[in-house]
Amino acid sequence: MDIEKELSELKTKVDAMPGAENKLSMVVFSGDLDKHIASMIIATGAAAMGMKVVLFYTFWGTAALRDPAKKAGAKNFLGTMFGFMLPKGRNKLTLSQMHMAGMGTAMIKGLMKKKNVASLDQLFEVAAMLGVEINICEMSMDLMGMKKEEMIDYPNLKVCGVASFLADAKESAVQLFI
Amino acid sequence: MDIEKELSELKTKVDAMPGAENKLSMVVFSGDLDKHIASMIIATGAAAMGMKVVLFYTFWGTAALRDPAKKAGAKNFLGTMFGFMLPKGRNKLTLSQMHMAGMGTAMIKGLMKKKNVASLDQLFEVAAMLGVEINICEMSMDLMGMKKEEMIDYPNLKVCGVASFLADAKESAVQLFI
Amino acid sequence: MDIEKELSELKTKVDAMPGAENKLSMVVFSGDLDKHIASMIIATGAAAMGMKVVLFYTFWGTAALRDPAKKAGAKNFLGTMFGFMLPKGRNKLTLSQMHMAGMGTAMIKGLMKKKNVASLDQLFEVAAMLGVEINICEMSMDLMGMKKEEMIDYPNLKVCGVASFLADAKESAVQLFI
Repeated sequence: MDIEKELSELKTKVDAMPGAENKLSMVVFSGDLDKHIASMIIATGAAAMGMKVVLFYTFWGTAALRDPAKKAGAKNFLGTMFGFMLPKGRNKLTLSQMHMAGMGTAMIKGLMKKKNVASLDQLFEVAAMLGVEINICEMSMDLMGMKKEEMIDYPNLKVCGVASFLADAKESAVQLFI
Repeated sequence: MDIEKELSELKTKVDAMPGAENKLSMVVFSGDLDKHIASMIIATGAAAMGMKVVLFYTFWGTAALRDPAKKAGAKNFLGTMFGFMLPKGRNKLTLSQMHMAGMGTAMIKGLMKKKNVASLDQLFEVAAMLGVEINICEMSMDLMGMKKEEMIDYPNLKVCGVASFLADAKESAVQLFI
Repeated sequence: MDIEKELSELKTKVDAMPGAENKLSMVVFSGDLDKHIASMIIATGAAAMGMKVVLFYTFWGTAALRDPAKKAGAKNFLGTMFGFMLPKGRNKLTLSQMHMAGMGTAMIKGLMKKKNVASLDQLFEVAAMLGVEINICEMSMDLMGMKKEEMIDYPNLKVCGVASFLADAKESAVQLFI
């Protein structure tokens, strides 16, 4: 047995092992307020514990990243329609259950304030401070006719494809789809 | 090359590797009957296969853990409202699709009985026997004004925060968000 | 310190480590068109990157695997009812949001075509070519009275239980529940 060779091979294997990084990757697919709150609480919690965190916003999730104060340039007809129909930014999101014509959503927001739970706006601020990375799915943006210039200001906001999420997920200790 | 040192360093690295435990961590966020059945079938299946299983109930999921026979003490106005509006216990949950004013939900329950699929009640019993751990999200309980004394009897039911879930998830081989 | 023994023990440990395979396991629980598209884009993307991919279709997800051109044999009353009520195949799926009596669903399908995003049919074809494995949950099929002969033609389509999913998930680098 060639100990040195065996040991070095094992080391290479361990280093290349998937899932071995102290990192969390999350797909944020949902357009529901409650799921966005959950994703941000998990993301900021993980970052606060020293994990590297990468969020990949796709489908309905992308609409939450729009900045209501920004205007996109010229769009085609369907892009304009989607832009009109989808919630413009995270403050327009509603609950997945008990929305009840706005009452449930307003109740939760009121409760969060009263109980000193951070609002979604504050959670995004904390996320930015803690270095949580936000990636937006290129295909979703293209499909819904959204443009990068109408997205929120966030450090190093990146537009990328599913391969980018998978590369992150593969080396992450934790992966979630929300 | 100092073989002993290298080997011992590699051993330390492998032991500290995230995701290396034969363990399953699951966030149960949903308030839908079908998703609760799925979560319990996965949890009891994993426990039966010898995995350590930790479930973290949050948001709508917490309502499923209420015991309809128990009374909570004094609550504030919003807590009372939520208590009234949310399903009281797992037997009040409904399907995410095809609820159809109760018909779909009743059909599934009837079918599960007929086909000898364990009911949600039985699955919780099995989970308890197999040592599946149940944690409840403190923030969700606080937000919805729920108290530990109105929760089901379950061995070592624990109320904790997101950091607890993340610590479990990080060392788990499998993590899911349902 | 017996180096040879220590090294060989560490090797065994590393080889048996859960989550160490370059593999993705996904539960496809949902019956929504958008989530099916997402699951297939992730699955084919991962397979294209050289990962082994195993999908486990359960609950509403199974309905998407029915082939509308095939007929199942005799069914009992509830099986017939479910067969009638659930979408027959992936081209009958609708969006989880903004279905709007079919308009939203038609818009997304139209957009995908226009933007050259592969349709769900094409994604299944690509998945088959790339060797993505499809497993169907036995209990779900039994519960909803579905039979293997009414399912789509797909290489090595397998009907199996939750234990099979867990065995895959445990050795996978990435696990998702959609």
